[in-house]
Amino acid sequence: MASLSDILVSAAINSSSALLFLVAFAILRLQPINDRVYFPKWYLKGIRDSPTSSGTAVKKYVNVDVKMYLKFLNWMPAALRMPEPELIAHAGLDSAVYIRIYLLGLKIFCPITFLAFAVLVPVNYTGENFEQMKETMKDLTYSNIDKLSISNVPSGSKRLFAHIVMAYAFTFWTCYALYNEYMIVTKMRLHFLAAERRRPDQFTVLVRNIPPDDDESVSEHVEHFFCVNHPDHYLLHQVVYNANALGAMVVTKKSLQNWLTYYTNKFERNPNKRPTTKTGFWGLWGKNVDAIDFYTEQIETLTKKEEAERERVLNDPKAIVPAAFVSFKSRWGAAVCAQTQQSHNPTIWLTDWAPEPRDVYWDNLAIPFVELNFRRLLMAVALFGLTFCFMIPIAFVQTLANIESIQKVFPALKPVIEMGSVKSFIQGYLPGIILKIFLILLPTIIMTMSKIEGYTALSALETRSAGKYHLFLFVNVFLGSIITGTAFQQLKEFMNQSPAEIPKTVGVSIPMKATFFITYVMVDGWSGIAAEILRLVPLIIFHLKNAFLVKTEKDREQAMDAGSLGWAISEPRIQLYFLLGLVYSTVTPLLLPFIVVFFAFSYLVFRHQIINVYDQKYESGATFWPDVHRRIIIGLMISHILFLGLLNTKKASNATPFLIPLPILTFWFFRVCKGRFESAFRRFPLVDAMRKDTLERATEPQLNLKLYLQDAYVHPVFKGACEFERRPMVEEEEEENQLVATRRGLHRDHVQGTQEDTSQDRIGISAV
Amino acid sequence: MASLSDILVSAAINSSSALLFLVAFAILRLQPINDRVYFPKWYLKGIRDSPTSSGTAVKKYVNVDVKMYLKFLNWMPAALRMPEPELIAHAGLDSAVYIRIYLLGLKIFCPITFLAFAVLVPVNYTGENFEQMKETMKDLTYSNIDKLSISNVPSGSKRLFAHIVMAYAFTFWTCYALYNEYMIVTKMRLHFLAAERRRPDQFTVLVRNIPPDDDESVSEHVEHFFCVNHPDHYLLHQVVYNANALGAMVVTKKSLQNWLTYYTNKFERNPNKRPTTKTGFWGLWGKNVDAIDFYTEQIETLTKKEEAERERVLNDPKAIVPAAFVSFKSRWGAAVCAQTQQSHNPTIWLTDWAPEPRDVYWDNLAIPFVELNFRRLLMAVALFGLTFCFMIPIAFVQTLANIESIQKVFPALKPVIEMGSVKSFIQGYLPGIILKIFLILLPTIIMTMSKIEGYTALSALETRSAGKYHLFLFVNVFLGSIITGTAFQQLKEFMNQSPAEIPKTVGVSIPMKATFFITYVMVDGWSGIAAEILRLVPLIIFHLKNAFLVKTEKDREQAMDAGSLGWAISEPRIQLYFLLGLVYSTVTPLLLPFIVVFFAFSYLVFRHQIINVYDQKYESGATFWPDVHRRIIIGLMISHILFLGLLNTKKASNATPFLIPLPILTFWFFRVCKGRFESAFRRFPLVDAMRKDTLERATEPQLNLKLYLQDAYVHPVFKGACEFERRPMVEEEEEENQLVATRRGLHRDHVQGTQEDTSQDRIGISAV
Repeated sequence: MASLSDILVSAAINSSSALLFLVAFAILRLQPINDRVYFPKWYLKGIRDSPTSSGTAVKKYVNVDVKMYLKFLNWMPAALRMPEPELIAHAGLDSAVYIRIYLLGLKIFCPITFLAFAVLVPVNYTGENFEQMKETMKDLTYSNIDKLSISNVPSGSKRLFAHIVMAYAFTFWTCYALYNEYMIVTKMRLHFLAAERRRPDQFTVLVRNIPPDDDESVSEHVEHFFCVNHPDHYLLHQVVYNANALGAMVVTKKSLQNWLTYYTNKFERNPNKRPTTKTGFWGLWGKNVDAIDFYTEQIETLTKKEEAERERVLNDPKAIVPAAFVSFKSRWGAAVCAQTQQSHNPTIWLTDWAPEPRDVYWDNLAIPFVELNFRRLLMAVALFGLTFCFMIPIAFVQTLANIESIQKVFPALKPVIEMGSVKSFIQGYLPGIILKIFLILLPTIIMTMSKIEGYTALSALETRSAGKYHLFLFVNVFLGSIITGTAFQQLKEFMNQSPAEIPKTVGVSIPMKATFFITYVMVDGWSGIAAEILRLVPLIIFHLKNAFLVKTEKDREQAMDAGSLGWAISEPRIQLYFLLGLVYSTVTPLLLPFIVVFFAFSYLVFRHQIINVYDQKYESGATFWPDVHRRIIIGLMISHILFLGLLNTKKASNATPFLIPLPILTFWFFRVCKGRFESAFRRFPLVDAMRKDTLERATEPQLNLKLYLQDAYVHPVFKGACEFERRPMVEEEEEENQLVATRRGLHRDHVQGTQEDTSQDRIGISAV
Repeated sequence: MASLSDILVSAAINSSSALLFLVAFAILRLQPINDRVYFPKWYLKGIRDSPTSSGTAVKKYVNVDVKMYLKFLNWMPAALRMPEPELIAHAGLDSAVYIRIYLLGLKIFCPITFLAFAVLVPVNYTGENFEQMKETMKDLTYSNIDKLSISNVPSGSKRLFAHIVMAYAFTFWTCYALYNEYMIVTKMRLHFLAAERRRPDQFTVLVRNIPPDDDESVSEHVEHFFCVNHPDHYLLHQVVYNANALGAMVVTKKSLQNWLTYYTNKFERNPNKRPTTKTGFWGLWGKNVDAIDFYTEQIETLTKKEEAERERVLNDPKAIVPAAFVSFKSRWGAAVCAQTQQSHNPTIWLTDWAPEPRDVYWDNLAIPFVELNFRRLLMAVALFGLTFCFMIPIAFVQTLANIESIQKVFPALKPVIEMGSVKSFIQGYLPGIILKIFLILLPTIIMTMSKIEGYTALSALETRSAGKYHLFLFVNVFLGSIITGTAFQQLKEFMNQSPAEIPKTVGVSIPMKATFFITYVMVDGWSGIAAEILRLVPLIIFHLKNAFLVKTEKDREQAMDAGSLGWAISEPRIQLYFLLGLVYSTVTPLLLPFIVVFFAFSYLVFRHQIINVYDQKYESGATFWPDVHRRIIIGLMISHILFLGLLNTKKASNATPFLIPLPILTFWFFRVCKGRFESAFRRFPLVDAMRKDTLERATEPQLNLKLYLQDAYVHPVFKGACEFERRPMVEEEEEENQLVATRRGLHRDHVQGTQEDTSQDRIGISAV
């Protein structure tokens, strides 16, 4: 167990590494050459131009203004300067609400920290269990941090009532803050939705599992069905093509195009020698050929194939999947269709809000109902396996990757392996690296699982993945660190314990793990967040692309990777800090300041990032908030149960009845909040739909909605098909243009108030 | 432990008591004087007339035809004769589907019994554990029934795989039968709904939590809201008055009226002496007065008060609760409004399908949203207390009701108590009677809890109560009988056991309790069902009323109590038999024939009862089926878990992996069924609404829907207000007339096909 001085040393190391990252960031961001890495958002919005286009040659790449280096922290006040309404207009509601999670962390934990240090620390410090413990139990290592924790209070002491009262105070404060925040976010969302400009998804419903009909095509069937059952509201529909093969071709072509650009550039720089390549995989083996000719030819062949496939998809009735986007004459009509059941067979004619066009996950639109059930069963089993048995395959690979087996498989490597340093590397680092590789792959694995489950929107995929990752972190990081051993062993142990024993087992080791988690917060939280702002990986990739692939200014824009918040991974991580803070608030208050620093620092960093860097792929209007709320409440209830277990080991079981109501009341609070707020995030109320419809009819009586919606939901590979010949990366470009248009629209919308103007809509239409 | 011969004796006793009930029933039902007790349904339908109105004096009361007594079981084939479509038309879909539960029991358990006797009984019988057991463990009492059960198979024997295979076979068969039945019931429901004649609830939505408005009354507010937000569909609305006080007055008046009738009858029979009564409570003390004058005066006072209250309620705007019944021009419009969210604040303007007028529970319409949350929290805690601690207050009352304390409180009773027979009665029977009284009160307690929870329809109240009673029976009858001791002790014990131990503890005692449950099935199932058909309590009450309160033929109709199925109590009881059958199917197959007999006998009896006796208060169209299905699946999963626990004690833990998939697959099956069928029971699809609307528009273009719906949802105390002077029991009468009309309508509907005729609707309107 680390002592207070160990913690201080660790804090010093981590603070300075965080500081190092910040200084590196401050220097790098001032270099014009990195401008597109650190301010991509402004480029995407079209507000910032390449600094490389003006000035001297040196100034193009390096910033030589010394004064600017001195103010290396001035991004911090700058990040705070933008007011929230402008932030919403600039970065979207999703991002603005996302950073409110950190703010919520501060709101919850600042008063809790203050109260805990004012009440619990003195109570613990004067508990004087420590001296006794030291005398009686020499084998247990207690540090002076434990003098400040509940471990210092003797078993059965009356002092424990202070902790119980504080548990109530903390819970009430947390619930109060959560309720307030839920209310604020709900208001923000409703205001955002009310002020939103016209979007195709407001009028559109996604219909899945259209039953086959012998006499009619899918398109006719949909039209007849909605003409009959929504006669006053149906406007038009768009069928969905199964263009997965075509999509794969587009991706391949893009990669070929990249290689062609690479070799063309190479040839231009060195016109004496035509570059060559090999015909095999990744140019590693095979016949030597002229690279430029080879790739030009390949692209031509593929273009022809693609054209044929495009024709086939458009003309083959079998390429139409039994799903369609159905648009209505009014938002009211769409809201009605999305919320009601159409057929008495609930497995056909399933209607739900259409995701916005950018948000559609096209590959999953064709999955039939029964198959969905199978897929979800399978993935539930897989998630259980992943969470509780994830150490087993890793341990297996680790045993395979030891020195003896490597020597057996590659006898030639024997002399290399037997070198001292290589040997120690293999023995010491290889298992760790294998684990790390797995942890890096984990988000992809989880996302693939969500895709297999068959959700049809990217936002739904992210939400689902976040849930899975949250479970994984709770079991393998939180529980796994407290009870050492793999999760599978834990599970086996738990199964053989009484249910009342589990919280005790976990509870009793919580105070002992406080120092570990303090270190964890500093390493993962402080340094990790500082690394986030440095954007090392995008920086390297951008410069690589810049060096090899960029020819025109447009290519440079392509090379820019703005990235996004990565909801599926980052939100569950925040939840871990909430959980740690809530669990340790009554046990070891010393952990709390570290959590507060984490939230404050993250708030700053992410506010800077969403202003300058991230570019969200879609806008959901903060639909994720109920998940955030629910997970914090889960954390709160876990903290109650573990505290109960801890108190039971403290021979304070007569205090148990006082604590039992706490989780019950918390759960009830959760139900109340769910009833009070959640439907604002799940359904679109008719009153609001009607209001927007009426307003629109009054302000734009001439609007041709049919034209506006006609091509809104076309598979991306069919968009701008004619442009494919001209520019190969048109698909992504197209999407980004649209993004810019949307943002611009939003921004202007905000500035000009809620009144919409037709010129924006023209931009919207042309972008679509 | 009872031996096989004990079981046979018990079977003989119970069979003969059941037979006795049947003979008594056969004799009593043939007496014309009891005709209204045993055939009330036919009277309510207006098909049967009082037999007392014709024939000689003797024949009026006693049936003297000897031949009819000989065929005393001929009600059985008669009960089976009516075909199902006619049964639905005669008794409603609820009743027809209810008896299908028994049929489902037969479908599930007949093949299981056959298979279990063909495979498991031989395997068990030749297991020869019994002889060993007898030698090694003298203290455990094994009977020869155990030779046929799994107890006879030695631990760790390969024979146990037969049981595992059978567990799979039974589960698959049960799921297959459940799936089929769900499909059939869904079809029946959809067919029933499609063929249903016009009913007010098809066009009406119940709106609750209407927000207060300073400028408008509730009525105006509702009208404006729906005119704006459902402009093409809104037709009219009816506000709800808080008439609870008025309702209480009506009840009081009815009771006074009964007393008046009683004394008038008394005076008529004995005209020499005017009857007197005392003014105090129930006429027990107070001043002696002339009874007829006294009650006439009382009724007059109350009538005036009632009139004033009626005026107050109708004119005071505060008497209007913030709820309303809103009717639409089409079923489509109502379906849309019921299924969508109106306001973005989900605690106001809550819309849901209106229950049919007879089904409305008026008292709960005014409860605000936040209070509902509090009430449900409270009732959840209360249900937990009721289920797990219900023995505590009873034990407390039982200790109070011992001889010493009775002597202390009533010293005067001392000589009486000290008499030998009284003393032994108090000691031997009083605790049992207190328990029995509680068990009789239990349904009322549970129903009161559901009422406090705030449901607005009688059908919802029954559904909720059934859920609570099911939990109670499972914990206190099933678990309570297996692990002797009160449920609270069990809970404490379970909390201190590991989760894996619980199924073991229960599982190991299951085979030992087989004989107890066989006896239970015979006593509660066989004799209980035979007692049901005898209708002893309604018989006595009818004759009492007949003797004292009946003056006219109409009064006699009032005295008739047809009763109803009592869903809240009877369904959970059936579920107990399903649970027993499923749990013992692999353990002690000997129990199965008793279950099969129970289901067959119940099917007969209840088919007879719904044809001749019961008169359902409302018609829900079998909305309860998802509950039935869910509870059988719960029983199936409990049987899996207990079988797993049992096998673990049999040292067959290597068999565990083979059984683990069973509950998981069952749960998945449940999810599939839920997705596939449930929404047909919960929501009203737009396709069907549109089809009925279109048909109606085509066949009855002249229909004045406004007139039809105008007074459909008027609080019963306001119905026929003008008639109150003439006939005091108009309220109930009214309701019954309506029932008759509805049934008649349904019946004719069926006979004539789905084509509706206007004359029926005229009946419907005039009845309403």
